Amino acid sequence: MPLKQGDHVLLFTSDGKSYLLEIRDLVFHTHKDFINLAKLINKNYGDIIYGEKGEKFYILKPTLYDFLIKIERVTQIIYPKDIGYILLKLDISPGKVVIECGGGSGALTSAFAYIVGEEGKVISYEKEIRFQEIAKKNLKKLGISHRVIFKNVEVVEKFEETEVDAIFLDLKTPWNLIKPSWEALKSGHPLGILVPTTNQVCQCLTELEKYPFLEIEVVEILIREYKLNPERFRPEDRMVAHTGYLIFAKKVIQK
Amino acid sequence: MPLKQGDHVLLFTSDGKSYLLEIRDLVFHTHKDFINLAKLINKNYGDIIYGEKGEKFYILKPTLYDFLIKIERVTQIIYPKDIGYILLKLDISPGKVVIECGGGSGALTSAFAYIVGEEGKVISYEKEIRFQEIAKKNLKKLGISHRVIFKNVEVVEKFEETEVDAIFLDLKTPWNLIKPSWEALKSGHPLGILVPTTNQVCQCLTELEKYPFLEIEVVEILIREYKLNPERFRPEDRMVAHTGYLIFAKKVIQK
Amino acid sequence: MPLKQGDHVLLFTSDGKSYLLEIRDLVFHTHKDFINLAKLINKNYGDIIYGEKGEKFYILKPTLYDFLIKIERVTQIIYPKDIGYILLKLDISPGKVVIECGGGSGALTSAFAYIVGEEGKVISYEKEIRFQEIAKKNLKKLGISHRVIFKNVEVVEKFEETEVDAIFLDLKTPWNLIKPSWEALKSGHPLGILVPTTNQVCQCLTELEKYPFLEIEVVEILIREYKLNPERFRPEDRMVAHTGYLIFAKKVIQK
Amino acid sequence: MPLKQGDHVLLFTSDGKSYLLEIRDLVFHTHKDFINLAKLINKNYGDIIYGEKGEKFYILKPTLYDFLIKIERVTQIIYPKDIGYILLKLDISPGKVVIECGGGSGALTSAFAYIVGEEGKVISYEKEIRFQEIAKKNLKKLGISHRVIFKNVEVVEKFEETEVDAIFLDLKTPWNLIKPSWEALKSGHPLGILVPTTNQVCQCLTELEKYPFLEIEVVEILIREYKLNPERFRPEDRMVAHTGYLIFAKKVIQK
Repeated sequence: MPLKQGDHVLLFTSDGKSYLLEIRDLVFHTHKDFINLAKLINKNYGDIIYGEKGEKFYILKPTLYDFLIKIERVTQIIYPKDIGYILLKLDISPGKVVIECGGGSGALTSAFAYIVGEEGKVISYEKEIRFQEIAKKNLKKLGISHRVIFKNVEVVEKFEETEVDAIFLDLKTPWNLIKPSWEALKSGHPLGILVPTTNQVCQCLTELEKYPFLEIEVVEILIREYKLNPERFRPEDRMVAHTGYLIFAKKVIQK
Repeated sequence: MPLKQGDHVLLFTSDGKSYLLEIRDLVFHTHKDFINLAKLINKNYGDIIYGEKGEKFYILKPTLYDFLIKIERVTQIIYPKDIGYILLKLDISPGKVVIECGGGSGALTSAFAYIVGEEGKVISYEKEIRFQEIAKKNLKKLGISHRVIFKNVEVVEKFEETEVDAIFLDLKTPWNLIKPSWEALKSGHPLGILVPTTNQVCQCLTELEKYPFLEIEVVEILIREYKLNPERFRPEDRMVAHTGYLIFAKKVIQK
Repeated sequence: MPLKQGDHVLLFTSDGKSYLLEIRDLVFHTHKDFINLAKLINKNYGDIIYGEKGEKFYILKPTLYDFLIKIERVTQIIYPKDIGYILLKLDISPGKVVIECGGGSGALTSAFAYIVGEEGKVISYEKEIRFQEIAKKNLKKLGISHRVIFKNVEVVEKFEETEVDAIFLDLKTPWNLIKPSWEALKSGHPLGILVPTTNQVCQCLTELEKYPFLEIEVVEILIREYKLNPERFRPEDRMVAHTGYLIFAKKVIQK
Repeated sequence: MPLKQGDHVLLFTSDGKSYLLEIRDLVFHTHKDFINLAKLINKNYGDIIYGEKGEKFYILKPTLYDFLIKIERVTQIIYPKDIGYILLKLDISPGKVVIECGGGSGALTSAFAYIVGEEGKVISYEKEIRFQEIAKKNLKKLGISHRVIFKNVEVVEKFEETEVDAIFLDLKTPWNLIKPSWEALKSGHPLGILVPTTNQVCQCLTELEKYPFLEIEVVEILIREYKLNPERFRPEDRMVAHTGYLIFAKKVIQK
């Protein structure tokens, strides 16, 4: 299907850089060349196009991963290394109904909406309207904002939904929402939490013990990148050492 | 929907152990109690049932994650920490068509089939019929074997498919299949490879350089588990130090 | 200098195992062969000797590292990975006077005594006489117990020494000894602490803030071992994930 | 002992920064204050001194660790995390005779010389005179350059010494010096090697197999730093992911 105005592309340059861009009447500059993005109309994902000075540009379809690392953000990042594991532990799959609180800039919202498909639904609570507007914009770029119900509400006592398939909490005091999460989940279904500090983990663990949850797990995910020279193969010099601790548990109806 | 004969459940005991079981006329024993699994018929996921000696059993719906760590295996394991990241990097989502080679015991096959949904398709190449039979059995337990085309074929020169959305290679000499992978992929789409040794990574990198691929990445994913006592919070004493190196790249039509 | 009765050797077998042994009239058995250890008298470190069935035994001089991993222990282990960094951060070197509390089975005591040499001194506080007896025995094997002053005392309010070069705390409630440590140290000199849990780290940090200390540091040291096959080079499958958190700080006379 | 011209101090400012400085007639500036370093003469380590604008400066005695992280460098760094473990595995202690090749800027040379004491000796081979001049200058600052024999020689076939206690190789092609190392070592004594790439590790392992060595070990040491807020305890965001692989082995007279 040929590309049209408003579509998003990942534009690769020959020096290995990539840019997430919307097709419209706008001149895009690199340090070597420039091109009017309207020229991409009627091209296809996978095609090559040349700049005004002859530089090669690769037109790629952005993957979810590309969106996750390139979307506009105003809040703390959730990293792909964590998102992959969260998707698996929360059993996200086509048709699922998932709550997240708070939604932030919409990175995790995007991942959930991408996987639950047209039959599924993501309910995204976020008390800061400013963050939620960014999230909406980001989901629109991916073309899947209709899979998300955005709620600009601060959850205090309970979620508005019940019998949901999974819940994820990404806010400063998640222990306050453990009881509401238990109440909103289907029996046997998973809760996930992300917190940056050990003190917060301890508070969550203390609260989780008060309600019927099984299979409690606290983990960190680390990713180590390698340099690409096969004659001198070795890890990159520096790495991300910490993003957050992930907590998971499954609701049961009684202890 | 009430449980029926042939359904799979995750049965939890009060001492924190869990078992992946099929409902049928069979007595299941723990060291404390026993129960005929036929008694689970007409119960629901999330219910509790009591053994003959009064022990409590939780009847949970197995998640994909539960299947991944409890399925029958005859080959090297792919761990959930790796699978989550693979799903993200290969952009697996509803409707996608994915090749994997070789399929082994079907862990990754299960994950792919679970996420591509009813509109997607997984083509699983495995030259060992013995492994593939196990994989088929495992996929049946998850109820999604109809999403997989099993091919008991050793790929040598080319895959039988073209224009696929993603390819994953999990075999001893993946460098031999880099050219066939390039040919079978849609332009702009991802290839993933898992190998346990640095020597294999170097051979793959050397081969990848010969074909038009962008965004080459080599990473390791590490997961560190924590003990659950909030008064004495600390990591587990031991961890899995290595499963394998993950290699990713995106096909483009020319360099 | 030829070996004599009472000397300690590291006896290596051809299948890669090693044993820390004292030379005396005793028959030592492996699963393949046996030898009376008295036969090592008048041999030299570095020599080879043959068992009664013809097996080769290598007679090596035990290094400090060998002692650290093979000494008799009744308490939690301090690992070489941690000891190396502790030696450096506490600036242990010939002639230094160092306090440790509590001494446990004497692993760190051995390391300190080994490096401070004949001009230095280690003062080892340990309230459990049972542990201290083991520590004394271990230090004697290394031939350096005369460099250690063993004190079977529970430190409550103050150390008996002042103007010491370095202090290391390895006990359950080290925060109680931060004030006494500050009082006993030379100005500008380092304090080190080992604790297994994050809760203990937080208590130490809170207490350290109350006294004039500079350059506070909290770290973990991880060691990852590799398999030795150069054709299939890769990390070991499992590793030690956690021993403890190390805390360091330098005393100054006022804030 | 009061400080005099030419002594080295670690000068701490109240905002947590520190500087390794030589006492001489020179005005030292921070962004807040300034002081003539000659004013430190007759002060003592551990004292406090005030700048011309009233800022507090702490005068500390630099530890070996301080030198290691602050010395002038022209070559690749060896990190304290690695040096601590190297000292232990090479059994460095008072009185030992140690070869290193190549010496680089003298970081490891300093550590060896610091621990072997007045009775020990370090022989430091370095073919680049430019690096060796820096190393000499660095050792002088520590006041222990007389414990080192600097040799501006490229070792090709053999070391000039025999019966040494330990050898460390830190150069591009260490496999060429494994035979010379075996010949120069006392029987039962350790060889250590640092290389940044897996390819170099594999070459070393292949070469080590050709000579009588026992207890071969390949490891990586990782250090993870934590933030110091006890209310929000968590790791630093980024860390050093890789410095090099460490290889150790013990010579025996025959296999």
